[in-house]
Amino acid sequence: MSTALNLPAVTVLGLGPMGRSLAHAFRVAGVRTTVWNRTPGKDRELIAQGAAGAATAEEAVSASELTVVCVVNYDAADAILRDDDVTRALKGRTVVNLTADTPVRARDTAQWAAAHGIGYLDGAIMTPAPSIGTPEAVFLHSGPSDLYERHLPVLELLGGTHTHLGEETGRAATFDVALLDIFWTAMAGYAHAVAIARAEGVTARELAPFAQGIGAILPPLFAEFAEDADSGTYSGEINPITSAVSTMAHVVEVSESHGIDAGVMRAVEGMARRVIGLGHGTDGFIRVAEMLGRH
Amino acid sequence: MSTALNLPAVTVLGLGPMGRSLAHAFRVAGVRTTVWNRTPGKDRELIAQGAAGAATAEEAVSASELTVVCVVNYDAADAILRDDDVTRALKGRTVVNLTADTPVRARDTAQWAAAHGIGYLDGAIMTPAPSIGTPEAVFLHSGPSDLYERHLPVLELLGGTHTHLGEETGRAATFDVALLDIFWTAMAGYAHAVAIARAEGVTARELAPFAQGIGAILPPLFAEFAEDADSGTYSGEINPITSAVSTMAHVVEVSESHGIDAGVMRAVEGMARRVIGLGHGTDGFIRVAEMLGRH
Ligand SMILES: NC(=O)c1ccc[n+]([C@@H]2O[C@H](COP(=O)([O-])OP(=O)(O)OC[C@H]3O[C@@H](n4cnc5c(N)ncnc54)[C@H](OP(=O)(O)O)[C@@H]3O)[C@@H](O)[C@H]2O)c1
Ligand SMILES: NC(=O)c1ccc[n+]([C@@H]2O[C@H](COP(=O)([O-])OP(=O)(O)OC[C@H]3O[C@@H](n4cnc5c(N)ncnc54)[C@H](OP(=O)(O)O)[C@@H]3O)[C@@H](O)[C@H]2O)c1
Repeated sequence: MSTALNLPAVTVLGLGPMGRSLAHAFRVAGVRTTVWNRTPGKDRELIAQGAAGAATAEEAVSASELTVVCVVNYDAADAILRDDDVTRALKGRTVVNLTADTPVRARDTAQWAAAHGIGYLDGAIMTPAPSIGTPEAVFLHSGPSDLYERHLPVLELLGGTHTHLGEETGRAATFDVALLDIFWTAMAGYAHAVAIARAEGVTARELAPFAQGIGAILPPLFAEFAEDADSGTYSGEINPITSAVSTMAHVVEVSESHGIDAGVMRAVEGMARRVIGLGHGTDGFIRVAEMLGRH
Repeated sequence: MSTALNLPAVTVLGLGPMGRSLAHAFRVAGVRTTVWNRTPGKDRELIAQGAAGAATAEEAVSASELTVVCVVNYDAADAILRDDDVTRALKGRTVVNLTADTPVRARDTAQWAAAHGIGYLDGAIMTPAPSIGTPEAVFLHSGPSDLYERHLPVLELLGGTHTHLGEETGRAATFDVALLDIFWTAMAGYAHAVAIARAEGVTARELAPFAQGIGAILPPLFAEFAEDADSGTYSGEINPITSAVSTMAHVVEVSESHGIDAGVMRAVEGMARRVIGLGHGTDGFIRVAEMLGRH
């Protein structure tokens, strides 16, 4: 199982864009990398570059102490891992699951692993596939600290920063889901902005530098609003939610005047108006976070 | 109307957080600044610092060649400007309207101004009130180039960057609405992320550094996706929309498992699923922009 040179060995299950990037980075770092994917053929390029192929997932996981799983979601991960032969082959080994899903699913998988004598770390990747192997990659992990410490040297061969968020298995998935919430909501805002700009004769390229400017003001505001949220002081001194909601209404109006669906902004505006309706019109927009969490 | 020293003179109508910041920056830059606000009292601090007060909007606009309007929206701006006395007093002078609203309203105001012999520039401010007077401020302008050139030296006293987007009056408002679309949608994603993180026992402060990381990856993606959108090549090679939609479903699931409204993400997911339904599941998420604009 270990090579003569005692190189680390890793198995990567799942060869979508992210799985391929992970396998590629391991291989480039000199790791003995075994790869497997449900649909055959996606391993071709990696094998040509020196990775080892495997006919079955069972064969793949048997080749390494450490198996990294990265498929579309935990239904897919379960379909691979909870096969009897694969589960048996994993006994005494470690799985690092870098598939995105919910904290509930992550905890359930940790229980399954514990019941079968399999070491289990849950994780998430917060940067796009091309970031893997570069300093830009961001990995989040949760699960037993000793297991994390043991496998960190190999995981670090993927580049970027690795953060252990704690022993509670669901932590990485919680951060992942929250961060994907920000990511996809923002991307939806961008795609929608491009659509309305175009309807008014402005190209995406013309809008882009200013869109980047908006992107650049978000991180400091995120930090500022985190303080507001945790301290419960939702000051609207700089920008009251009554002012915000007025500009949201403009987005809806312009969209719909061009026949462009404004469902996302209507939902955003609805949250803001609920906050105003609760008597907090002079507060800042981030009060929405409190309103959402209160039931 | 002009002082002995021939200092520039500006009137600021509207003293909300942004109007106050504008008036303050003009005054600090040595401009003879006259201020007025519908509700009295908001001028007190500015007058104490050396700005001139005015009993009426008519009196205020009569004090300067240039009037900057910054109120909540064009209903409010109209309520001030389209008063007979004010309109008469503005004849031969220039209005720079830095109020946010739609391109339709901006064009309508330009027509009103032309019909009354008033010079008119439309504009928008893309950065928060505290940015005014600093290099971070971002101002967008549209309208007659000669008028813009004439007043730019005074407008530049507000700091930041000023961009003339063209003579068509609606351009600044178009960019403004598109950029506010990005801004408020992203902020809604952030507020919602904070709510679900908290429901899972993670504080906003714990999430913040990673949220900032997500914020930092948006600007380059905006630039990249602008190329995709304008060229019509929505490659999902790195992240197909079928993969994206799976993570959106996790956000909805986690939210609703905690009784947190997921209306925004449901709307985002709906757009993504419509793209998949149209047969573009292997494309990237930005294909949504095209789908929205096609009817
Ligand atoms: N791509 C990125 O930039 C990026 C960034 C951050 C995180 N992620 C996360 O990384 C994970 C993998 O993403 P990805 O980009 O590689 O593409 P993906 O489209 O999310 O996943 C594709 C992989 O899932 C496998 N799969 C799907 N259903 C399966 C099933 N029922 N049984 C077995 N395997 C199944 C596919 O196998 P087949 O080839 O057989 O269909 C393929 O290996 C996801 O959780 C994603 O959210 C991706
Ligand atoms: N604050 C920011 O950080 C920021 C950033 C970028 C752009 N902006 C834009 O700047 C503009 C002004 O925003 P703001 O932050 O100063 O606060 P705001 O709450 O949007 O506007 C408040 C101002 O509007 C006036 N107003 C409202 N209804 C009126 C009416 N019917 N007649 C006359 N005046 C009326 C208020 O007068 P009263 O005091 O009498 O109510 C006050 O002067 C908005 O378009 C906003 O979108 C603001």
